[in-house]
Amino acid sequence: MIRLGYSTVSNIDQTYIPRRTVMYVPGHDPKKLKKIPNLGVDCAVLECEDGVAINMKVQARKNIREALEYLIVKNMDLALRVNSCSSQLMEDDLGAIIGSDIGEPAKVERLPQTILLPKVDHVQELVTFTERLKSVKQNRKYCPYLITYVESTQGLMNMRDIMKQAAKYSEEGIFRMDGVVFGSDDFVADIGADRTSDAKELIYARQKIIAIAKAFRLQVIDMVHVDIEDLEGLKRTSIEGAKMGYTGKQVIHPKQIKTVQEAFTPSPVKVKWAQELIEGFEQHQKSGKGAFVFRGQMIDMPLLRQAKNILRVVENVHRPS
Amino acid sequence: MIRLGYSTVSNIDQTYIPRRTVMYVPGHDPKKLKKIPNLGVDCAVLECEDGVAINMKVQARKNIREALEYLIVKNMDLALRVNSCSSQLMEDDLGAIIGSDIGEPAKVERLPQTILLPKVDHVQELVTFTERLKSVKQNRKYCPYLITYVESTQGLMNMRDIMKQAAKYSEEGIFRMDGVVFGSDDFVADIGADRTSDAKELIYARQKIIAIAKAFRLQVIDMVHVDIEDLEGLKRTSIEGAKMGYTGKQVIHPKQIKTVQEAFTPSPVKVKWAQELIEGFEQHQKSGKGAFVFRGQMIDMPLLRQAKNILRVVENVHRPS
Amino acid sequence: MIRLGYSTVSNIDQTYIPRRTVMYVPGHDPKKLKKIPNLGVDCAVLECEDGVAINMKVQARKNIREALEYLIVKNMDLALRVNSCSSQLMEDDLGAIIGSDIGEPAKVERLPQTILLPKVDHVQELVTFTERLKSVKQNRKYCPYLITYVESTQGLMNMRDIMKQAAKYSEEGIFRMDGVVFGSDDFVADIGADRTSDAKELIYARQKIIAIAKAFRLQVIDMVHVDIEDLEGLKRTSIEGAKMGYTGKQVIHPKQIKTVQEAFTPSPVKVKWAQELIEGFEQHQKSGKGAFVFRGQMIDMPLLRQAKNILRVVENVHRPS
Repeated sequence: MIRLGYSTVSNIDQTYIPRRTVMYVPGHDPKKLKKIPNLGVDCAVLECEDGVAINMKVQARKNIREALEYLIVKNMDLALRVNSCSSQLMEDDLGAIIGSDIGEPAKVERLPQTILLPKVDHVQELVTFTERLKSVKQNRKYCPYLITYVESTQGLMNMRDIMKQAAKYSEEGIFRMDGVVFGSDDFVADIGADRTSDAKELIYARQKIIAIAKAFRLQVIDMVHVDIEDLEGLKRTSIEGAKMGYTGKQVIHPKQIKTVQEAFTPSPVKVKWAQELIEGFEQHQKSGKGAFVFRGQMIDMPLLRQAKNILRVVENVHRPS
Repeated sequence: MIRLGYSTVSNIDQTYIPRRTVMYVPGHDPKKLKKIPNLGVDCAVLECEDGVAINMKVQARKNIREALEYLIVKNMDLALRVNSCSSQLMEDDLGAIIGSDIGEPAKVERLPQTILLPKVDHVQELVTFTERLKSVKQNRKYCPYLITYVESTQGLMNMRDIMKQAAKYSEEGIFRMDGVVFGSDDFVADIGADRTSDAKELIYARQKIIAIAKAFRLQVIDMVHVDIEDLEGLKRTSIEGAKMGYTGKQVIHPKQIKTVQEAFTPSPVKVKWAQELIEGFEQHQKSGKGAFVFRGQMIDMPLLRQAKNILRVVENVHRPS
Repeated sequence: MIRLGYSTVSNIDQTYIPRRTVMYVPGHDPKKLKKIPNLGVDCAVLECEDGVAINMKVQARKNIREALEYLIVKNMDLALRVNSCSSQLMEDDLGAIIGSDIGEPAKVERLPQTILLPKVDHVQELVTFTERLKSVKQNRKYCPYLITYVESTQGLMNMRDIMKQAAKYSEEGIFRMDGVVFGSDDFVADIGADRTSDAKELIYARQKIIAIAKAFRLQVIDMVHVDIEDLEGLKRTSIEGAKMGYTGKQVIHPKQIKTVQEAFTPSPVKVKWAQELIEGFEQHQKSGKGAFVFRGQMIDMPLLRQAKNILRVVENVHRPS
């Protein structure tokens, strides 16, 4: 029943970290960093990249390092977005925050659970990042989740190769490749397009990213809705993204959180499907007989994992926070 | 005038088997099998896979083997859908129906003209199938048409490589690669999408499948319309698929046949274009002078073959059945 | 700041040749050739291919060779479209017009600035063309811009490989790869589709071509609008193409020129963005400090080049012609 070709990191029992909302918190602003536990997002991003001016990068690294020590979060993925490899700032980000550039290396439990790597255009950039990560880890058993960004035509063209390399590193235990973000603003600039309200010019990119990410059993985080006041448009595009296969969406303002969380929460019908499928599978496991058929469909591991992921998202939502 | 890179199986003189309608007939139901000659579809599929419950697989193989002996069809492609390689049931399907697992091997003229292989996600699965097919053929000169399914993100991502391998096997004379089916239900589950009425979430997959299949000069069979009562919607999506480049469509109920057959029958305008092009080409062949230009366009072999295929579909439709 | 992987031909200082309108002028018609300087298009194409009947090819080559001697154009790209490699006429086109097949080889300044190569389906065709071009160049330092056509499913499938090979040849200085044209009519015939008014059946092809071309920093020329009388539709599809990322459009009649030129001229908002970005970059260069951030975004070379290209298009438009 198990389909070929999925890496061991796609193991059915791997923990699922819901990231319906991925919100950037600028690293240079200690006040905003302190408020993270109350944000009510699935994934809070300690931001070093575009949200931080070039002359504030050093301060941002210092603040983030401190924040990782004092922040206590529940049901939240605390992530770090470093600068891109092409900026040549990534090395210092990792050196300061994960490594020992500005103090004793932190304990593993005080390191970010997830690292976000923007602007991955070529396999080489993933290689550069990985070498640096290995170097700053030193002897600690730190294996963060990794989420990369597709933000250019090169990144889209090379996505399959980059994901293959990421799967290889994941099997080696250097990080756990877990998701892809569509950075649509840079992508639109790269193709020289104008954004239209229905994003017609992005159909190819937006759907190719889903298809390749899902082929590697990864989460996919949809593009930013830039107009903060347009909650109606935000709702529409969030639901559209969720129906298309995205598992979450980038958020740039607290106003956007509620709408996005709701759009990416599985519907009761989906939850019921998932519960019954899993119950059926467990009963079938006990009987030990052949293939498992549910509602007339032969169930394979990817579908079972999808069902489990749906329940994990829901469980996380309903836990007291 | 001949473009490079088309395998010898794309020879202009190859027989064209119309498959505007591809209908599944469950192998465990002898009554339905007996009615096949009167179905009025282009391609009737003796079904071993999803349409047959796991505890009926053995019976289905037996019934299909018998049906192949007694069924007499005219102007119809009698096809066999085996189970997927990942189910590990494919070997027994081929062993029982094509090979000698449950009796003397059948004569070539009583074997299915076409084999449908679902859930081909990786080149390796095509290799596994081919090895098994070669083994069960024994000494008989059996060379079925092969049609594979794209039903997952892996299958879509690897489609080009899989088609290249299939073209290679076709040149070796093991089978004749002839078409691709878009298995949209599994694909939608795989990307975690919700189906919408206009199938917007499937634009990338649906059109990529056409583009790659046509690059290898293959037929392309469009997705199932699941709502059996919705004949209006069926008509709309059938016409849409035909206009997009699909050559046929899967059918799950007799009610759907007429609508789908009509949508995939070439229009009179197309037929006239094809007839005149071929007449022009034949006259040009006699004169023996240089390139052939028709209605201002230089005609290459793919276009000529497309014209011939249009006429073959039409001829088949109008033959007394 | 510089992203990896762009070939040296994508150098920021390379001259940008605007080609908002690409218009074919049949080589067999000396009257039309003589009127080229007054056409008011960005790129006038001396046509040997589909616009010239097979028995007029020899005459067309002769006319074009003469036209290149007498034509004086300003702010216009004078291009040559040869026949496809598969037609086996390309060799004679190049031999007669660029080489010495019908007279002394012309001086470099009387050779076409750009060559258009249609129907490039496989890398091998680009290799064949390049070998021939090298051969007819002889000792002259002639390095034309090259623009290739995607007109088939094979060409679309192999586009990435073809562009890689073209980038390699460009680095070797044989030609300067500069753009890709979407030949939609042949493509539609190749996938067996019917054209619809909103070109829905072409979304995948049309957007994939943009994405790959832009990954190699190339111009992208959109499909022909065949209905010459339909200026409203022409305007709509031109604007749509421009918003999607196309940099220009093929034109088949003088009536179409004005509408297309306007649609592909950058808007005042874009021009202002480009001017301010470049001014900011120049100031930043003087200060010599780190990365350059503009309107909150870190600016990389591709974006800077895009800004420069916008200004170059505008400068060219406003120059007295």
